[in-house]
Amino acid sequence: MYDTYADPEEHIIADYYVESTYPLMKIGRMIAAEESTGSWVISERETKELIEKYGAKVVETNEEKSTVKIAYPIINLNPDDGVALLLSTAAGNIFGMSAIKNIKLLDLKFPENYVKEFKGPNFGIDGIRKLVGTEKSGRPHVGTIIKPDVGLEPEEFAETCYEAATGGCDFIKDDELLGSPVYCTREERVAAVMEKLDIVKEETGRNVLYACNITTRVDKILDAADIVMDNGGNCVMLNFVTTGFSALRVLSENTKLPVHCHRDMHAAFTRNPRHGIEMMVVSELVRLCGGDQLHTGTAAGKMSASEYGVLNYNKFLTQEWFHFKTVFPVASGGVHPGVVENNIKILGNDIVLQAGGGIHGHPRGTRAGAVAMKQAVDAAMKGIKIEEYAKSHEELRLWVEKMK
Amino acid sequence: MYDTYADPEEHIIADYYVESTYPLMKIGRMIAAEESTGSWVISERETKELIEKYGAKVVETNEEKSTVKIAYPIINLNPDDGVALLLSTAAGNIFGMSAIKNIKLLDLKFPENYVKEFKGPNFGIDGIRKLVGTEKSGRPHVGTIIKPDVGLEPEEFAETCYEAATGGCDFIKDDELLGSPVYCTREERVAAVMEKLDIVKEETGRNVLYACNITTRVDKILDAADIVMDNGGNCVMLNFVTTGFSALRVLSENTKLPVHCHRDMHAAFTRNPRHGIEMMVVSELVRLCGGDQLHTGTAAGKMSASEYGVLNYNKFLTQEWFHFKTVFPVASGGVHPGVVENNIKILGNDIVLQAGGGIHGHPRGTRAGAVAMKQAVDAAMKGIKIEEYAKSHEELRLWVEKMK
Repeated sequence: MYDTYADPEEHIIADYYVESTYPLMKIGRMIAAEESTGSWVISERETKELIEKYGAKVVETNEEKSTVKIAYPIINLNPDDGVALLLSTAAGNIFGMSAIKNIKLLDLKFPENYVKEFKGPNFGIDGIRKLVGTEKSGRPHVGTIIKPDVGLEPEEFAETCYEAATGGCDFIKDDELLGSPVYCTREERVAAVMEKLDIVKEETGRNVLYACNITTRVDKILDAADIVMDNGGNCVMLNFVTTGFSALRVLSENTKLPVHCHRDMHAAFTRNPRHGIEMMVVSELVRLCGGDQLHTGTAAGKMSASEYGVLNYNKFLTQEWFHFKTVFPVASGGVHPGVVENNIKILGNDIVLQAGGGIHGHPRGTRAGAVAMKQAVDAAMKGIKIEEYAKSHEELRLWVEKMK
Repeated sequence: MYDTYADPEEHIIADYYVESTYPLMKIGRMIAAEESTGSWVISERETKELIEKYGAKVVETNEEKSTVKIAYPIINLNPDDGVALLLSTAAGNIFGMSAIKNIKLLDLKFPENYVKEFKGPNFGIDGIRKLVGTEKSGRPHVGTIIKPDVGLEPEEFAETCYEAATGGCDFIKDDELLGSPVYCTREERVAAVMEKLDIVKEETGRNVLYACNITTRVDKILDAADIVMDNGGNCVMLNFVTTGFSALRVLSENTKLPVHCHRDMHAAFTRNPRHGIEMMVVSELVRLCGGDQLHTGTAAGKMSASEYGVLNYNKFLTQEWFHFKTVFPVASGGVHPGVVENNIKILGNDIVLQAGGGIHGHPRGTRAGAVAMKQAVDAAMKGIKIEEYAKSHEELRLWVEKMK
């Protein structure tokens, strides 16, 4: 059902699932008013002409799905005001409206006119593969989060990185909890880690990425990125939900390093299927704001998400979208050698398979854990079951036994 | 039930409501591990000594309320990494853990050692009252959001402000949707508005605050605050949820103007009583980060919130808390003269009663709407019912009739 025509080149279309005692078209109009020119009564200067030009419009309702699509005129949204104002518009007051019982923002469709002001990822999957040297094989990347998450001092932290890297990790990252505590400051940590990864490069010729978590005050993020750069670092990480999408955009526009995006806190508003914001929207905004890698969940792990959902986010991140480079999806949370095959089968080869406990919890420690993860990926790429592959691969065998 | 002692001077205590199939103590320990040193298996370097020093601890469980308190060691949290890392710790991955069905962060208790690095509000209620001249009367402030929210050009926008101010508003703000669109840039708007408010000051001696919305890219927020300042502006506003708490802190530490905090999008994670983050925690973080005014809801209006909740947030914001100044609570959303008495009765006099449609939707327009709101506040302060007061106050009478 169509209410009004809205030029797709001049509007952002938001798709909502809505529960309300009002009919869909009526609640749609209430949302459109609340999030553009209106209020609960007509104001003195709210003319028909003004509403026509600046008002949001209901462009579709779907009774079966209980969804409504609202078109927001981009004339109200200066791209420089960015994602914060976009969220305030498409995902702002609506969540608290008493006329609505539950509402979930499912998707945003952007016009070229709006997104052209955004640069998007600097590297994308191709760029990151070139850094690591997997552009030919196209295999999944093996990643790890250094564990324990917090509590290690720089030397021990760097030693753990060295073991993970020599064991076979392509990518190493800080836990999202690790910022710059007094016992392991960002500067000391990145210097210690890069010294070790330089040795790995000399020894093996392999370039291993280390994403240093630069989540900090927004006025210090670029300084923190400089600290990483100045100490030879090759990747940065941001907790972009708790820091804000806008900080991600500013970081991506100003750094020469790939940006790894950790989505902690997202499930406070993505998990309830009936209220909040869909992870698909988060994925869209991260790509807009220039993240190069993004946690989207696993097909098997400790975090809650449907396989279907993860597959959808990953498809979006890896397919063409305007002028934007792709985003490398990261499967993280409960990942270990035993779930590698299943994750690759469902999510494909363009994936970073990231194991924390699944590597550092190996009976023989971090190095053996990384070896076992790489063996599991090799087995999957050769189409061999890990139980079979484990017979001739000691580290994998020890892990498989541990998990029995 | 107590698991471990945690020095209250060295830990932040988070209180969670939890739903899980695991016993409370077990799920508490899983949260404590996930959000500090641990993972789902023990890692090579995760020693007892390390867990003892850096690990989070379950310090209380309450079966009746289904709550668990976790103590996070502040040694892991550099205050400079700020609220983003704090949220990543106390409100990060927990929301997505598959072992948990629902979880809500209800409250945070901070030690002096952590909060001393935060400056808090620059003005608070006393400071804002001094600017407006209500420090003696102590009456509620009359506020308005200029409506239509978007679509007005600077001259008409400023004229609306003039009418609202001469009608009796103490405080005028941009809608949260209004950033710096091409037809009404921030600079042109604030210049036009302040010219009018200077006239109001000459004519009436009254100092009316205008909160210009400076929600924009995080690297341009301070520039936007400067634009407001350079054009004679006297207040700024930030959509702090969509921009990020960290941006609020940086703004508050760097501006000489009061900061009005709009909480749009909060209900994406505050509304569900069983999952997400309580508005009390949002209130605590805003005070920590230096907001001077904060929307907390109404005792009667269009937004969903329990009176009990609003009263609690407002009590917290207006009472003593460490070295921090107070925060002026703002009741907004569906406010109009008819709900003034009830809001004051429940929420007290330290409140900004902010009406959008409730002023600009007056049958005789903005000025009469502001007069009617002020009359409703005067009536409440004199203990006179508005129906009675309306008999001798024309603007109020017209509104009361409109609402019949």
